[in-house]
Amino acid sequence: MLIGRDQKSSVIRLEPGAQFHTHRGTIAHDDLIGLQWGTQVSTHLGYPLILLRPSTDDIVRNLERSTQIIYPKDAGYILMKLSIAPGCRVVEAGTGSGGLTLVLANAVQPTGRVISYDIQSDRQELARNNLEEVGLSSFVTFKNRDIADGIEECGVNALFLDVPNPWDYLVQAHSALGGGGFFGSILPTANQVISLIAALETADFGRIEVEELMLRPYQTVSARLRPRDRLTPHTGYLVFARRLIPSGG
Amino acid sequence: MLIGRDQKSSVIRLEPGAQFHTHRGTIAHDDLIGLQWGTQVSTHLGYPLILLRPSTDDIVRNLERSTQIIYPKDAGYILMKLSIAPGCRVVEAGTGSGGLTLVLANAVQPTGRVISYDIQSDRQELARNNLEEVGLSSFVTFKNRDIADGIEECGVNALFLDVPNPWDYLVQAHSALGGGGFFGSILPTANQVISLIAALETADFGRIEVEELMLRPYQTVSARLRPRDRLTPHTGYLVFARRLIPSGG
Amino acid sequence: MLIGRDQKSSVIRLEPGAQFHTHRGTIAHDDLIGLQWGTQVSTHLGYPLILLRPSTDDIVRNLERSTQIIYPKDAGYILMKLSIAPGCRVVEAGTGSGGLTLVLANAVQPTGRVISYDIQSDRQELARNNLEEVGLSSFVTFKNRDIADGIEECGVNALFLDVPNPWDYLVQAHSALGGGGFFGSILPTANQVISLIAALETADFGRIEVEELMLRPYQTVSARLRPRDRLTPHTGYLVFARRLIPSGG
Amino acid sequence: MLIGRDQKSSVIRLEPGAQFHTHRGTIAHDDLIGLQWGTQVSTHLGYPLILLRPSTDDIVRNLERSTQIIYPKDAGYILMKLSIAPGCRVVEAGTGSGGLTLVLANAVQPTGRVISYDIQSDRQELARNNLEEVGLSSFVTFKNRDIADGIEECGVNALFLDVPNPWDYLVQAHSALGGGGFFGSILPTANQVISLIAALETADFGRIEVEELMLRPYQTVSARLRPRDRLTPHTGYLVFARRLIPSGG
Repeated sequence: MLIGRDQKSSVIRLEPGAQFHTHRGTIAHDDLIGLQWGTQVSTHLGYPLILLRPSTDDIVRNLERSTQIIYPKDAGYILMKLSIAPGCRVVEAGTGSGGLTLVLANAVQPTGRVISYDIQSDRQELARNNLEEVGLSSFVTFKNRDIADGIEECGVNALFLDVPNPWDYLVQAHSALGGGGFFGSILPTANQVISLIAALETADFGRIEVEELMLRPYQTVSARLRPRDRLTPHTGYLVFARRLIPSGG
Repeated sequence: MLIGRDQKSSVIRLEPGAQFHTHRGTIAHDDLIGLQWGTQVSTHLGYPLILLRPSTDDIVRNLERSTQIIYPKDAGYILMKLSIAPGCRVVEAGTGSGGLTLVLANAVQPTGRVISYDIQSDRQELARNNLEEVGLSSFVTFKNRDIADGIEECGVNALFLDVPNPWDYLVQAHSALGGGGFFGSILPTANQVISLIAALETADFGRIEVEELMLRPYQTVSARLRPRDRLTPHTGYLVFARRLIPSGG
Repeated sequence: MLIGRDQKSSVIRLEPGAQFHTHRGTIAHDDLIGLQWGTQVSTHLGYPLILLRPSTDDIVRNLERSTQIIYPKDAGYILMKLSIAPGCRVVEAGTGSGGLTLVLANAVQPTGRVISYDIQSDRQELARNNLEEVGLSSFVTFKNRDIADGIEECGVNALFLDVPNPWDYLVQAHSALGGGGFFGSILPTANQVISLIAALETADFGRIEVEELMLRPYQTVSARLRPRDRLTPHTGYLVFARRLIPSGG
Repeated sequence: MLIGRDQKSSVIRLEPGAQFHTHRGTIAHDDLIGLQWGTQVSTHLGYPLILLRPSTDDIVRNLERSTQIIYPKDAGYILMKLSIAPGCRVVEAGTGSGGLTLVLANAVQPTGRVISYDIQSDRQELARNNLEEVGLSSFVTFKNRDIADGIEECGVNALFLDVPNPWDYLVQAHSALGGGGFFGSILPTANQVISLIAALETADFGRIEVEELMLRPYQTVSARLRPRDRLTPHTGYLVFARRLIPSGG
């Protein structure tokens, strides 16, 4: 549940008897339950609030997180580059806080599946809770395993590595992907991108692409349209490639 | 069907007996039919090619077009901001060349639906053909109507206006959207953004956001990582808002 | 005087007997006086510092300020677009905190002159002190006047307006500039840019250009090259034009 | 001499008896000689032209070139970061086509000096001609020498390396610079930046900075303000540092 006012917003779960506290007054959850989305309400101090269902963007940005998340600007583009659609089988590693897991699960449901690997079980537990909160956990198989020991799936449509050293797992990635399968990764530093491209060049991958998305938010006052001072930080370089059939094969 | 080599690629439909011509030799479609995705082949001059299924990004960029298309960088982000998922009902106007229609149809299938309005029937015909080519036309209802005369749907999850004057259709948009419904638009000029924000401020819409995505492609030679000289052009400013219940209501 | 360590720096004036305090210890000014630039010293807690003469960039960023300053990224480009060189006569309004005044005075010395108008005398006093600190005030004539009442100079090489409503002063600007003279302005909002372009189009100005410079700083650790999270904010849109001889004249 | 119309412009030298040809008609140089800057004239086909003195930006962009030039957006910022002012002594290598040489010579005149090294004499000859054309060659000493063999100057204020392997010349750079002297370089690839930072970290240089300037030009029609489709390409990463006194010294 999201209550937003101007640009400040909070995602909350409505519970009978509870109170929502803001620095400009409180409002009883009971006063909100049963209202239509989009209704405008007020705190006891008269501060206006809007009751809205959170967007995918809102949910991902508000996730309880143990790690850097993959932002919606990148996640949406990843869907386009990896051709994610309902019915796809997608492997990701690591799970992290589940931001991309959530976007992938939402996109492959109801017939597809996300298989998400992570070596840290507590981190994965948090992600699982995040997915359960939004009702998407049934489309995800969480595996508390190191992909260095192999990826158990094969013939998957797409695979995304959000790990610091993706170049170490290209053999496993190649074996999990089907012919022409989609490979993706996100990396914060140029050094990592250089290492990954070099490894992809010598493994059986082709159509390597490196791209970066810069998001520029604007102030939304019609009389003073201008880029915001608070800019979105650098999130990472996106690397994409396609699995090839070894040419000798 | 896509055959790509390095960064140059072509999307073709394989037909028995046909030839694929490049400036570095030709290859018979018969030699490609039945091969696995990801197979590396050669033209009669020995130029290497890769047989790959096109990604959503490739398909959208290669659409036969009568108008400026909405690029995948923007389309992916629109999915996140408008919370598009399998099962959603989404209205768009105009259809244009069907780039966004394709992305939306792909995302709402198999149980959702895209309703796409356009006043120009020839343009819409082209879009319909584009959607048929990729097998997604059964998830779209094309309407050759002017939304100034009203949008026939109501209670839809999201609505996207890709028209030069979206501020003229906010009443229709409000009536088509369900409570808290997601509104979006893309506009090439700052003047249009200013007009749309001003109109949204006085209509019953809230949580207005204006953002711009800049895509920066890099050269993919590991020894010389650098931004490409060929940059992606300005596509447009993205405007998002949420439908509110009129506060007097 | 500047003492910097890593990316943190302070511009100080060395005075006998004084102490420089950091959160990692203090150092006596007497220990610094007489040292060569580039010498590495330590606080009493052993924290290393470097004694460096501040660059123009450092000085401008560290100015005592009453207003938003014009950043060096923009100021350097303004020099290129307005053809500022030793010997030039340049008019600016308003003075603001003197950031651009300082850059202009530094560039036109020893034979040129900057004439700087501002309606607020206290603000101009601060700018004058800033210029005196760096020994450049003798190349500037400060005028505590409103340019709406006219610009007293004529035949100047270049004129820069850092005011919220530059379109109101184009007659004064035209009369102050020599034939083909260089006009420039910086404006934070798109609405202002639209108003200024519209006014320039109908006044006798030509070769109108609008540009924006985005500065992207990187972290400087060789093993982890990446854009910094702290990005430089939007400073403003730069507008340039040339004074024309009225075609009927 | 520059004749510009809208955004198209040509820098020409007026010669009695000559003709200036455009695709929209011709005009005799004799009709232009003696006119005031800013005068609006017409070709024999009635196409309007404006007679303007070129800006530093125009001159640099129109230089006859044998190599990639350093663009004004970068050159102006280099002046700020290297604290270039009238009277400075500055070393640069290589000369290239003389774009930065011109900007530096313009900024240090009349009492300063630019010393410009290049190993290719024909390239340097072109740069010398470019500087002579604009009357700035008397402020430059061209040296057809390899800086690997040493830089003959010492105690210079600033030094700029526009060579592919600046990390190979840090010893020479350190010996040429005075205490706290300003070091700068421009490099097209991330790999080069990584190598240079690594070398600077172990040589006696401090306050290392890496920055990139992105220039975004806008269309200048007041009713349709929008970024241009033709974007400025990636020019290079800027690296700055300060010469330190060796801490053991």
